Amino acid sequence: MDFRTQIINASAESYEKFLPHISVDTVVFGFDQGSLRILLLKMNYNKEWFLPGGYVGKEEDTDEAVKRVLYERSGVKDIFLEEFAVFGNPQRSQQSFADYPDTLWNKQRFISIGYYALVNYKHVVPQPDSLSETCQWIDFKDITELNITMDHRKIISKALRTLRERLSYKPIGYNLLPDKFTLSDLQGLYETVLGKKLNRGNFYRKMKNMGILQKLDEQRKGGAHKAPDLYKFNVETYKNILQEGLNTW
Amino acid sequence: MDFRTQIINASAESYEKFLPHISVDTVVFGFDQGSLRILLLKMNYNKEWFLPGGYVGKEEDTDEAVKRVLYERSGVKDIFLEEFAVFGNPQRSQQSFADYPDTLWNKQRFISIGYYALVNYKHVVPQPDSLSETCQWIDFKDITELNITMDHRKIISKALRTLRERLSYKPIGYNLLPDKFTLSDLQGLYETVLGKKLNRGNFYRKMKNMGILQKLDEQRKGGAHKAPDLYKFNVETYKNILQEGLNTW
Repeated sequence: MDFRTQIINASAESYEKFLPHISVDTVVFGFDQGSLRILLLKMNYNKEWFLPGGYVGKEEDTDEAVKRVLYERSGVKDIFLEEFAVFGNPQRSQQSFADYPDTLWNKQRFISIGYYALVNYKHVVPQPDSLSETCQWIDFKDITELNITMDHRKIISKALRTLRERLSYKPIGYNLLPDKFTLSDLQGLYETVLGKKLNRGNFYRKMKNMGILQKLDEQRKGGAHKAPDLYKFNVETYKNILQEGLNTW
Repeated sequence: MDFRTQIINASAESYEKFLPHISVDTVVFGFDQGSLRILLLKMNYNKEWFLPGGYVGKEEDTDEAVKRVLYERSGVKDIFLEEFAVFGNPQRSQQSFADYPDTLWNKQRFISIGYYALVNYKHVVPQPDSLSETCQWIDFKDITELNITMDHRKIISKALRTLRERLSYKPIGYNLLPDKFTLSDLQGLYETVLGKKLNRGNFYRKMKNMGILQKLDEQRKGGAHKAPDLYKFNVETYKNILQEGLNTW
């Protein structure tokens, strides 16, 4: 079956199953040791890159829809997705599927709800769906080169901005770092997400004040320098801050 | 015309004008000198209280729709509304309009996009629309007593939580305080929004470090104590931080 037939067949089914005019898009950031990546698919149909996205079932919760969509499009599951913004410009997808009939499901106006997640990309092996040529982790610094569809570049920027703002009142690191880590590992994570170097002293003080770190009676051996102390997260405090937000006052 | 006829007539028009399944709701917080209020309407039809909300035109940007909706329902205009969350539970409005026909526009499932704003309530005089008995500023501490419709109480909580989190990386005060204010005025505003007392020394240090305050060569006269210094906002720095977020690293 060629792509055109496949897209037209899917259209009829979509009218049956989904709410019109509403879509979800996922920005999945992948971290591992100093590099930040993003999960993207490449369309069979026009070779453009796009975020894993799809539609909301007529009786489906949006928070459930986005998990299903991410899994169906990329094979990725069991990650915590957080809603961050709505993209409601009536022209946002106007150019797509221009050479298809106007009755095509995909050609209607869609208001898209953006969700993001931050995972360790080594733990996630993406699998493309049948409409995509590939689904892969792309290094964040390489995405400027890509032909990205519609407003998906804007969606990615807004997600990264939201993730960075979120670091002002919520910790990150759990599920991204090994169980035992050094303060340098944690600083490296923050620097990668924030896209800039941080002052070591300030960073350490801030992290220690948060009360989420537990110093272990253990050092990481094997380096040329003095063996650095290992830490683990105090999971209870960590989860409490995730829930309540960091008290910065 | 009775309420029932009015609602049924509006339904036919809504099918023509609006996108199905999508609504917008606004949480407008009003501040003045130590008190936090919220803008609520009371339905003619069932006497429940609700947030000013409505629907998105078929060709309308969601950010434009919400401004129009707020104006039509409450007479409030020219305020900056920020999108903060989506409410997509399929049962969220199931109980509403139970005694109306199933074809009523209002009885369909709506995914609602929440927007919030913080204004000086003395500058805003609300006017109810024709479906509402009243539109007024309700003191935040009194809303627990009210019969609030659907999930609107949840929407209000989420808005307040988002506003509080936002204080970690964005300043507030501009358009809420008089042009010249004391540090106590500003602390009072933060305390009202955060719902707790703050340490005076920490607060002053934090605000001064932000670089948004300009000390004037003027004091507020007339109190029993030493006349406190007056400040104004450094608008350029203030707007820059609104744009870029506060560098907390």
